[in-house]
Amino acid sequence: MKIYFAGAIRGGPEDATLYLEIVKVLRAYGEVLTEHVAAADLSVFGESEDDRWIHDRDLAWLREADYLVAEVTSPSLGVGFEIAKATEWGKRTLCLFRPSAGRALSALIAGSEQVTVSEYHSATDVKEILDQFFSD
Amino acid sequence: MKIYFAGAIRGGPEDATLYLEIVKVLRAYGEVLTEHVAAADLSVFGESEDDRWIHDRDLAWLREADYLVAEVTSPSLGVGFEIAKATEWGKRTLCLFRPSAGRALSALIAGSEQVTVSEYHSATDVKEILDQFFSD
Repeated sequence: MKIYFAGAIRGGPEDATLYLEIVKVLRAYGEVLTEHVAAADLSVFGESEDDRWIHDRDLAWLREADYLVAEVTSPSLGVGFEIAKATEWGKRTLCLFRPSAGRALSALIAGSEQVTVSEYHSATDVKEILDQFFSD
Repeated sequence: MKIYFAGAIRGGPEDATLYLEIVKVLRAYGEVLTEHVAAADLSVFGESEDDRWIHDRDLAWLREADYLVAEVTSPSLGVGFEIAKATEWGKRTLCLFRPSAGRALSALIAGSEQVTVSEYHSATDVKEILDQFFSD
């Protein structure tokens, strides 16, 4: 089973720590294609490769994936883009959202029938949410 | 000619002023379906309607549109989502980006062959960019 994990690359240090923990938990359910999203050394400018190359690699991974799991607390053009592609391509999609961050989630995501949105507060909630999602 | 304008609803006051000016310029090229994005009274929590209703309305507008014009300086899940849908649905897409804001644009957008990315610095640059885009 292949899982595409998406998170805001410029989400900041709190997000980066959470992404690492989520990816660790995700590995119990399948192969995580996008572990670099949680890499601690990623700068606010993201990866240094050519944009076209990153675009093509990421979309190839997303096509190959059975599932998209996206952390959606921090706003991100890339993550929104990936979620829309996943809904177009019929991938089962889980969005993890921390309401404590005081932001509203975009209606395009919260209002999509093809997306499961689960609120969580810490990485320890994530295991339960993933168990539920992957057992459905 | 119908134009879907997309911008980060929570982009902040500087963005809101620019969106208003961009929408004003866009009206010379066609009907702008999403003028509310530039409404001055939109709060950081966006619109008050039900998420499903907003989702269905926005995607119906996007399907109806001939063009997507997106302001992509501020990160936004919704704007990323709309750009991906537009690329899937074969809509001609223009992304306006202010490099002066000190952020890198997501490679999924900068690296897409189906998206035209134009850098600008103020609303006065936008007219020239739109002239070029709509005359191609």
